[in-house]
Amino acid sequence: MAGVDSIINVKDVLPVELVTGEAHLPKGYIAGGMHVGIKRKKKDLGWIVTETSAEGALVTTQNKYPAAPIVLIRETFGRFGPLKGVIVNSGNANALTGSDGMRDARVMQEKFAELIGARAHEVIIASTGVIGVPLPIEKILHGYDLLREDGALSHHDPEAFAASILTTDTVSKIVSAKLAIDGTVVTVSGYAKGSGMIQPNMATMLAYVMTDAEVKGADLYPLWKSVIQKTFNRISVDGDESTNDMALLLANGAAGVLLAPDHPAWPAFAGAVYAVARELARMIARDGEGATKLLEVVVTGAASEVDADKVGRAIVNSPLVKTAIYGEDANWGRIVAAIGNSGAAFDTQKVSVRIGDVLIFNAGVGLPFVESDVQAYLSGSTVRITVDMGAGDHESEWFGCDLTEGYVRINAHYRT
Amino acid sequence: MAGVDSIINVKDVLPVELVTGEAHLPKGYIAGGMHVGIKRKKKDLGWIVTETSAEGALVTTQNKYPAAPIVLIRETFGRFGPLKGVIVNSGNANALTGSDGMRDARVMQEKFAELIGARAHEVIIASTGVIGVPLPIEKILHGYDLLREDGALSHHDPEAFAASILTTDTVSKIVSAKLAIDGTVVTVSGYAKGSGMIQPNMATMLAYVMTDAEVKGADLYPLWKSVIQKTFNRISVDGDESTNDMALLLANGAAGVLLAPDHPAWPAFAGAVYAVARELARMIARDGEGATKLLEVVVTGAASEVDADKVGRAIVNSPLVKTAIYGEDANWGRIVAAIGNSGAAFDTQKVSVRIGDVLIFNAGVGLPFVESDVQAYLSGSTVRITVDMGAGDHESEWFGCDLTEGYVRINAHYRT
Repeated sequence: MAGVDSIINVKDVLPVELVTGEAHLPKGYIAGGMHVGIKRKKKDLGWIVTETSAEGALVTTQNKYPAAPIVLIRETFGRFGPLKGVIVNSGNANALTGSDGMRDARVMQEKFAELIGARAHEVIIASTGVIGVPLPIEKILHGYDLLREDGALSHHDPEAFAASILTTDTVSKIVSAKLAIDGTVVTVSGYAKGSGMIQPNMATMLAYVMTDAEVKGADLYPLWKSVIQKTFNRISVDGDESTNDMALLLANGAAGVLLAPDHPAWPAFAGAVYAVARELARMIARDGEGATKLLEVVVTGAASEVDADKVGRAIVNSPLVKTAIYGEDANWGRIVAAIGNSGAAFDTQKVSVRIGDVLIFNAGVGLPFVESDVQAYLSGSTVRITVDMGAGDHESEWFGCDLTEGYVRINAHYRT
Repeated sequence: MAGVDSIINVKDVLPVELVTGEAHLPKGYIAGGMHVGIKRKKKDLGWIVTETSAEGALVTTQNKYPAAPIVLIRETFGRFGPLKGVIVNSGNANALTGSDGMRDARVMQEKFAELIGARAHEVIIASTGVIGVPLPIEKILHGYDLLREDGALSHHDPEAFAASILTTDTVSKIVSAKLAIDGTVVTVSGYAKGSGMIQPNMATMLAYVMTDAEVKGADLYPLWKSVIQKTFNRISVDGDESTNDMALLLANGAAGVLLAPDHPAWPAFAGAVYAVARELARMIARDGEGATKLLEVVVTGAASEVDADKVGRAIVNSPLVKTAIYGEDANWGRIVAAIGNSGAAFDTQKVSVRIGDVLIFNAGVGLPFVESDVQAYLSGSTVRITVDMGAGDHESEWFGCDLTEGYVRINAHYRT
């Protein structure tokens, strides 16, 4: 897919104003969430329904043990096509559950399709939570009964949806952007969950981005794939990939604007999708299990984008860098050691490293810096490390977080 | 090097009795250690001297930023050849120290060579500790003066050597094996340091293994390379590789037995070198920073050794598996998810997983097991996970440790 990558060229993306934390859903979508008893108290069943059929584009985990819902939607939906709804449960991943798990996934999909007047293949299902435990499908079906009785499906509460898909996340992740295209407002809104088992290469989280623009599936999918490559595939909490993850982009056309790559507003639209996904990715990284800081790694001057990714990944995945960031320690030696282990091609004498704006490593040696200045910077909630490889003009941007005692505590005793 | 790998076939290795913790140095070696003030209180300068010239075989870090001592010994020594001594300081890595670091490394080597009546290229130097801080070479030279005055070089104290090379290690790592060959006792003894920045692919620790057998360098090097591939390259504490690491095998011939691959006792000798290196690797993994348990991962039935390594590495490097082991939680879903992410080729329905002797996963689903039995096993100090891939007859054995709050504490505030 040579053309895919060119769809989003980060350097050319137009700036777009983002709204975070508040749900500004595009036209024609209903979203909500409720508690059905899979988790003890918190919301654990969420849905998105589009009033008219939408085009969807889907990317799923690369784990060789995909969970039952992933196996199912690959069969029934594929990569792009028409969709009417999304149903997600949290608290149980329906992963490594064998043929019973597949049966439960089919029931979860078919019964929700019935509820919203769709066909099974027009529904995307997702599960997240504990692995290897049978899905309590009867609780989900009981939830469907409540929805049918109460007409709750028409009760629009996007924040309840955002809450219902969380597991060990501490905050909901909601981002919106608005564009004026030909005098019409087009909205792009996204929701995500992340927290643990987060690592580059997809397979890592749930993300649902919706727009009310009209876009054909054949245009939507390469855009989405390209956006994911530069956003969700460049975050890492712990280097582990999950069995369940997916990112879905929906375009229902309710705004009445048809967009395609040859439309003059396409770059602005693609930029808005990219910006929403990027901000969701940052929010996932910042809310990594036990994290106290967002770690942003910007790699410039690499010989290739692959090399830039190798260096970015090596730094955000290094436990020694991550613990140093937690300790607010300007330990540049660990950053340089990670670069040295990345497998990227470069001249060791041409690499420079900055923590924030302070140049701390250049021409193979550490530079004198005012320790208190760097420490003050490291005490903030966002730490940016910039590496220039001096080897070309390719770049990459990665998001991660610090590694804390909290991560260990959460994962030593939580059975995911 | 097709022949290298065949030198050690783990299945054919003869059992050998190991002595750990006590230093049984082979004939003709002097080893010792002292405090010269690089560290606050603990021993920080150690040496090994061989009375007659030994053959040495050396493997060094793959980090692209090798420390000054590594750069120097690659120049002066290469991969194998005659050696008379080894000098190691801990507390300072002399890494990322530029041309000053190279000058200090040369002085450290030349002055020690003078002290023991050798030529510079017959001395291996090593440094381990904080990165990016100038080596306090004057303290090392002061140590040399003390040695010269006191004749301390003839004061034989191998345990002092083992202590002097440690950084955040909590215990010395000493292993010995004895063989009777043609009526003569041949000894193989090794010392190592590890703790943090430990990950497969060499580049991870210091290890010095000595024997009093006589072996030509051209035979010694491929043996050592093959042993390292199956021992030190299969341990992981945190997935980070250091700038300083090396493993050196010395053979001084003091026992009066000449060994070569066509000697009937060669397999027994190679097996002893392998067993000593393997036990040092296990000790390094068990003493990983903050670790409370040794994690042994045995992968069998893989389609290739490369695939077996991918699976073993994925499991010992998974923070989610490592925290579950710490929490004594039989979280087999995380083990299977790691296998699914490993990149190895296999049929998901043919993989089985055991924790200790208990089969917990087979044919794509978890099996019922007595939770209290598995928990009792997990409460021990060694946890063995066995994975059969059902894809061939290749295998691999990996060593790691649990991930604890202690790891985070040590690394959040220790500037390595």
